Amino acid sequence: MNLKELSNLLGLSQTTISRALNGYPEVNATTRARILKAAEETGYRPNRAARRLATGKAGSLGLVMPVTAEQPMDAHFAEFQSGLADECLRHDFHFTIMPAKPQEEEQAIRDLVSSGAVDAYYLAYMREKDPRIAMAQSLPIPFIVHGRSLGLAEDYPYLDVDNEEAFAEATRYLLSLGHKRFALLNGPFDLDFARRRRAGVEKSLAAVGMSLPPEHVSSTLMTDANGFQHMMRFLEQGSRPTAVLCASTVLALGAVRAIRQAGLEVGKDISVIAHDDDLLLLKPEHFSTPLTTTRSSIREAGRRIAERLIAAVKGDDTDAPQAELWRAEFILRASTGPAPS
Amino acid sequence: MNLKELSNLLGLSQTTISRALNGYPEVNATTRARILKAAEETGYRPNRAARRLATGKAGSLGLVMPVTAEQPMDAHFAEFQSGLADECLRHDFHFTIMPAKPQEEEQAIRDLVSSGAVDAYYLAYMREKDPRIAMAQSLPIPFIVHGRSLGLAEDYPYLDVDNEEAFAEATRYLLSLGHKRFALLNGPFDLDFARRRRAGVEKSLAAVGMSLPPEHVSSTLMTDANGFQHMMRFLEQGSRPTAVLCASTVLALGAVRAIRQAGLEVGKDISVIAHDDDLLLLKPEHFSTPLTTTRSSIREAGRRIAERLIAAVKGDDTDAPQAELWRAEFILRASTGPAPS
Repeated sequence: MNLKELSNLLGLSQTTISRALNGYPEVNATTRARILKAAEETGYRPNRAARRLATGKAGSLGLVMPVTAEQPMDAHFAEFQSGLADECLRHDFHFTIMPAKPQEEEQAIRDLVSSGAVDAYYLAYMREKDPRIAMAQSLPIPFIVHGRSLGLAEDYPYLDVDNEEAFAEATRYLLSLGHKRFALLNGPFDLDFARRRRAGVEKSLAAVGMSLPPEHVSSTLMTDANGFQHMMRFLEQGSRPTAVLCASTVLALGAVRAIRQAGLEVGKDISVIAHDDDLLLLKPEHFSTPLTTTRSSIREAGRRIAERLIAAVKGDDTDAPQAELWRAEFILRASTGPAPS
Repeated sequence: MNLKELSNLLGLSQTTISRALNGYPEVNATTRARILKAAEETGYRPNRAARRLATGKAGSLGLVMPVTAEQPMDAHFAEFQSGLADECLRHDFHFTIMPAKPQEEEQAIRDLVSSGAVDAYYLAYMREKDPRIAMAQSLPIPFIVHGRSLGLAEDYPYLDVDNEEAFAEATRYLLSLGHKRFALLNGPFDLDFARRRRAGVEKSLAAVGMSLPPEHVSSTLMTDANGFQHMMRFLEQGSRPTAVLCASTVLALGAVRAIRQAGLEVGKDISVIAHDDDLLLLKPEHFSTPLTTTRSSIREAGRRIAERLIAAVKGDDTDAPQAELWRAEFILRASTGPAPS
């Protein structure tokens, strides 16, 4: 059964059938139900090219991916894509990834939009006062920002985790355990989420008249090797921290190795809290000392962004919130304990 | 400077300029050099939509990604994409990912090709006698298989690691250390690479009249949790293995935890060798006992597949090998030692 045969069978145009089967709103409910029933009974499966012609849509979501020698795609992004893919599959969408050098991202977005290859797109790896947001607002197709951009009014659609509050809460908990010497293994400081996490730590410390010593802060790609190297440095410089916050469980993996290698015990000599994107690969409960975390699933964020973008493409997004700020869960495990006396 | 202005400036058609700037072969060398010089001097940057019109190419590589609840995209695939993205960027290509349920991959490939969204594509997650290969050969655009398919003649373009030889070599090394009780933590056994890895182990064991006990073989997704769980099982059932081969450093992460939790020492009580895809996230030299590995960069495989596909799209692939079989490096570290007496 092809589209033409189904069209003859039902006495409806191919365009109407395509629109109905793809959830576009121009078809009335009775007709839609009739079409869905016939498609099911005949085993008709729409052809993507025909659908594209009928709906005028590419059926694709886009992303510009920054590529540098130092910053390969990592596990966090893989899990994000995984959620995106799940949701795309449910709606018969695909997605298009345009790699770009960091300084050429704006042109890449223009190219992606003008190519017609995508119906909507999302912006990620946000920086402070990011010029991509104003540009995206001037372009003709829907977009969502994954994250936010400090220094700009929040008048754009976004989905973000409340990174500042997550790290403020973790810091308050460590303060309640009597810790006085803090360290922060952060992500790259040009990225918005890293700035907000640091701000969260500093806010809670400032509330009790304390601050982060600059020699106990790092801002690096979130790899195991960086976690190890910078934790080693923290242990060698100044007075040793007793509480360490990590922007990722991946950084924590290296940090814990450094702590153990120095003959110290996690949760006793040094308390560790990491942000957990809920990576399949690396579960905080499986660390030798299970990790206390702030958790927010990055896979779920990918799923939700796809859901919102597809709704926008289909004109179904009138009820969708413009802004979504997710609160991370605080999960207590064994890597945190009272400050050593 | 836009394409029209450059065309007027040079007295050449927009099509000729686009073809020259995108490396298509129809333009003679003198004209191409003149165009490149003018583009550089005027700062002209081609518009992707104009280029698509001029070349008739989408400028995109495609992949069908199997999506199941149990098998989210993982770190291995992320690193592969990272290499692919690097190479796409060098040639101003993007890539298109079509998620599909495993039983619907063939239709998804047809859809991807008929949509016109991609100029070439690659097949991955190969199974035994995989029907996608014959189908791909019947479709009109270039493709490459990442991996191979057991049971089919190798008359298709592919790039694969010699998985059988890698695991045969690792097993021979363990035999030379006097090991007699082997275990294998393998990937999903419906996938071609997992079958070949097991065949490699079995070949080397059979050569000395030995075999793998079925209770000491697992075939699972390559996650830390599966490595832990199945290594625990191996330690509890039958006579304890003294040599364990792992299909990924991610499986080895869990296996090493299980070994240590059982009060045993890696490299002394139990020798461990893992296949290392050279993941950024997880370096075998950073394990508490540095891991002996068979190594082949999955990122480099992604880069090479993009290079070959783009050459095929541009008609530049006359010299390209149809088949490429990469040999894994064997790298000795501290996780392997003489069989305990």
